[in-house]
Amino acid sequence: MPSDIEIAQAATLRKILPLAHERLGLPEDSLVPYGHYKAKLSLAHIAGLQDRPDGHLVLVTAITPTPPGEGKTTTTVGLGDALGQIGKHAMVCLREPSLGPCFGMKGGAAGGGHAQVVPMEDINLHFTGDFHAIGLAHNLLSALIDNHVHHGNALGLDVRRITWRRVVDMNDRALRQITVALGGPGNGYPREDGYDIVVASEVMAILCLATSLADLKRRLGNIVVGYTAAKQPVRARDLKADGAMAALLKDALAPNLVQTMEGTPAFVHGGPFANIAHGCNSLIATRTALKLADYVVTEAGFGADLGAEKFIDIKCRKGGLKPACAVLVATVRAIKHHGGSGLEGVAALEAGMANLRRHVENVQQHLGLPTVVAINQFTQDTPQELAAIAQACADLGVRCVLANHWAHGGAGATELAHAVVQLCEAAPPRRAEVYADELTLDQKIEAVARKIYRADGVRFEPKARQQLAELQAQGWGGLPVCIAKTQYSFSTDPGRLGAPEGHVLPVRELRLNAGAEFVTAICGDIMTMPGLPKAPAAERISVDDAGRISGLF
Amino acid sequence: MPSDIEIAQAATLRKILPLAHERLGLPEDSLVPYGHYKAKLSLAHIAGLQDRPDGHLVLVTAITPTPPGEGKTTTTVGLGDALGQIGKHAMVCLREPSLGPCFGMKGGAAGGGHAQVVPMEDINLHFTGDFHAIGLAHNLLSALIDNHVHHGNALGLDVRRITWRRVVDMNDRALRQITVALGGPGNGYPREDGYDIVVASEVMAILCLATSLADLKRRLGNIVVGYTAAKQPVRARDLKADGAMAALLKDALAPNLVQTMEGTPAFVHGGPFANIAHGCNSLIATRTALKLADYVVTEAGFGADLGAEKFIDIKCRKGGLKPACAVLVATVRAIKHHGGSGLEGVAALEAGMANLRRHVENVQQHLGLPTVVAINQFTQDTPQELAAIAQACADLGVRCVLANHWAHGGAGATELAHAVVQLCEAAPPRRAEVYADELTLDQKIEAVARKIYRADGVRFEPKARQQLAELQAQGWGGLPVCIAKTQYSFSTDPGRLGAPEGHVLPVRELRLNAGAEFVTAICGDIMTMPGLPKAPAAERISVDDAGRISGLF
Repeated sequence: MPSDIEIAQAATLRKILPLAHERLGLPEDSLVPYGHYKAKLSLAHIAGLQDRPDGHLVLVTAITPTPPGEGKTTTTVGLGDALGQIGKHAMVCLREPSLGPCFGMKGGAAGGGHAQVVPMEDINLHFTGDFHAIGLAHNLLSALIDNHVHHGNALGLDVRRITWRRVVDMNDRALRQITVALGGPGNGYPREDGYDIVVASEVMAILCLATSLADLKRRLGNIVVGYTAAKQPVRARDLKADGAMAALLKDALAPNLVQTMEGTPAFVHGGPFANIAHGCNSLIATRTALKLADYVVTEAGFGADLGAEKFIDIKCRKGGLKPACAVLVATVRAIKHHGGSGLEGVAALEAGMANLRRHVENVQQHLGLPTVVAINQFTQDTPQELAAIAQACADLGVRCVLANHWAHGGAGATELAHAVVQLCEAAPPRRAEVYADELTLDQKIEAVARKIYRADGVRFEPKARQQLAELQAQGWGGLPVCIAKTQYSFSTDPGRLGAPEGHVLPVRELRLNAGAEFVTAICGDIMTMPGLPKAPAAERISVDDAGRISGLF
Repeated sequence: MPSDIEIAQAATLRKILPLAHERLGLPEDSLVPYGHYKAKLSLAHIAGLQDRPDGHLVLVTAITPTPPGEGKTTTTVGLGDALGQIGKHAMVCLREPSLGPCFGMKGGAAGGGHAQVVPMEDINLHFTGDFHAIGLAHNLLSALIDNHVHHGNALGLDVRRITWRRVVDMNDRALRQITVALGGPGNGYPREDGYDIVVASEVMAILCLATSLADLKRRLGNIVVGYTAAKQPVRARDLKADGAMAALLKDALAPNLVQTMEGTPAFVHGGPFANIAHGCNSLIATRTALKLADYVVTEAGFGADLGAEKFIDIKCRKGGLKPACAVLVATVRAIKHHGGSGLEGVAALEAGMANLRRHVENVQQHLGLPTVVAINQFTQDTPQELAAIAQACADLGVRCVLANHWAHGGAGATELAHAVVQLCEAAPPRRAEVYADELTLDQKIEAVARKIYRADGVRFEPKARQQLAELQAQGWGGLPVCIAKTQYSFSTDPGRLGAPEGHVLPVRELRLNAGAEFVTAICGDIMTMPGLPKAPAAERISVDDAGRISGLF
């Protein structure tokens, strides 16, 4: 069986400029090429598209995943291709993969099998440099903070209250907790610090929610980097960092255009973490795709409890998007996993359906999206298992289709495509947010906990309770909340599979993202800097003398 | 008076693909575009050029500089343009600027006035991402080191003897000396560490000396990252890091093609520090340019004592290059500066000529290069001052020409161009190395110290003396040496201007660069991570709503 990279390298790519012209009507001078197969669409051209009507927006989400994931990206690509195969004018919007995990466990993240975006190696490695620009803009602000303190600290920043860390696009556990500015007066004032991975940077979240270069600059200036001894916030604007940060990001804000292996145009742009941030590709890419195509298929990170909720409550709310429907991806493997360890085969599957059932209810009722379940089929799935899922979905009143895009590309997902078209045409787009803007931050967290996680309530730890009071008093109560918890359970305990009940959401800490304009609630252990495994993927990755990459599976 | 960025933004650029075809005969498919005005020349195409004859290689170097620099890059660009104006087929090879200094004191580094490479903002900011790739390849190795130690340390690395630091392309003094892996067993084994700026990375030096992707991978594998408790070296290859590092660098190795404001093709590729590394653009770019043009003008960092010596003894020796001649750039300002603080006007100038005189002798006699002195003219220079320099050069028997490319572009440097052509045509290319490969490391350091710095001798501090013995015993004696000392004096004391005598070269430390294949001798205080000034340039840099950068002067 060929690996993902072997399949991708065997694909025949079309040059991106003629493809963009033919498929999207984009003139050559609207695109800035990065090699022959990648391009950025200019912000000036995007500004000229605003009067066009929007296409249908389709969200691909998933049940609670197992560690390898259930194939949301693959399904997004496969569905985009399948819509093309049934004669619809479609585009795909994906997140950019992070380099760090490439060298760790996961390998590439640009789809899989016969449903990939290409050039796969480029997309997984440096791509068009967006993440490098984000990392550098972030670290420029970090350097300006310590430099300000070193040169007299006119703003009175309290070095114990600096909340802005540093970032690198690498899994590097040794950088989680460090001390900086050691070595004497010439090196500044020693303090505790740490690194997060670039996808966890607030700059990443800002880039993905900004509507223009002006909006980006405004948001960058609003970043709160820390507090004075009197607990007054100090912003990036106070350090005069916003202009240079925006200058570093001006190209990164333009969406990246590539293609699927079947030639469907795809924006692959931005990639905020799906726990401490909102986990969707850039708003600017999604909005632009809606002007360029009749059907836009996009995804949101992790299961629907995290990804779809944030997609609706943060991205769609702030960006004025109205999705038409949702595709809920499930696999036999994951449903059985949720059935618990005591059961096997169809019995495990039937027990595990509780997880799927709850996600379907959430997406349909609480997020307001007509839903189709897509079973991402694996070769080892048995007919009995597939029949059991079909029956359970029928009982639930939700349509369920098998999807074989991994093996067959778009041709394997045409039934899914027809189901999606039917949902899009059946009703006008709408969205039902989980909470209203007017609620307080704790009320918003409680609404998500009760409606989506089905918790009995929320427990704020003392520190979080105090932060809640401070944030409300400082006027941040109107922001949406972004809940960071494990993706492996509706609860905060990754061991509680299926559809747990009776749990409480423990909120450990609140983090203000004044530039990204949401407040993150940290619930349970959340890692913002992953580590590498004992035998990291980096050991297998190489390049031959002709420049051909291998080992990025 | 318009600023550099204003002049550059007013220039009319030609699209790079047609320019490359017309000026260099490069077919479109040999180039990978990065936007419309930057491209990388493919390594496959370069491999096909090897049978062509070489053009003339012209080195631009300088007298001992003042802090703002004397205009080597500007002169390199102006001379390239002037050669074109007198009907020669010329190319320019420059280093890529580092982002860090952009945000600090210096602003941009792509020439100045009417002698710049463009697009200036792109070249100064992310350009084609080479430095990001180098930084990430470096930091991947760092992460793999701590990960190896964390997961059992099978190689027995001594955490006290890890010599591989981390890097970032930013002036950030707080990162010079840090402790990492704090916070408990999950974060690894605590140890001291620190960051250097990316241009100081050995990976940068390796990229700039590698002759092919295979050679790059070999050198990366050879990097020594630290030692076991028994002082046995541990290499990147032992950590299986070389493949993934090379994969990250495969595009970065291809030279970047841009143009001067007058349309002269320019490779801007690689940029190792000129003190702890060799300070020249990539060997692959210079070699390729020699296949594509009749005259190739390049530069080496700092004054001729550092830059020209390393250009000859490291880059030319290892790369088989034979330069035809050298241009020694001087300014009235710098010569007066070397005259000392007690003198003014022509008297200062005459005293300061001792510096220029010594550099001319060094370049002609010890480096074997026919030399012309170029006075990079400033508007405030008086006729009396210029006449005094002319007389001093006449007495010295070296040709001296005025160059006004800053104000007039190539037209301001045609006399210099004619002088260079005359030198190139007068004699076959040759080079005289300062020391033979067979000498021991200390003999090599002594040869440079006595011949070039005119020191009375070398003093190895005890640590350096021990390292010398170890390196010789381990078989590294055959490598060239790269001396890191201040650029502001022939001695290691930046206050000793002019042509100091009676000084001794104190060697504090030796650093093995087993991948780059040279041994660095640290003499005096050498900073591998700069800091930002009190009012950094970052505060003035911005971008308007249409994407136009300002403040990068």
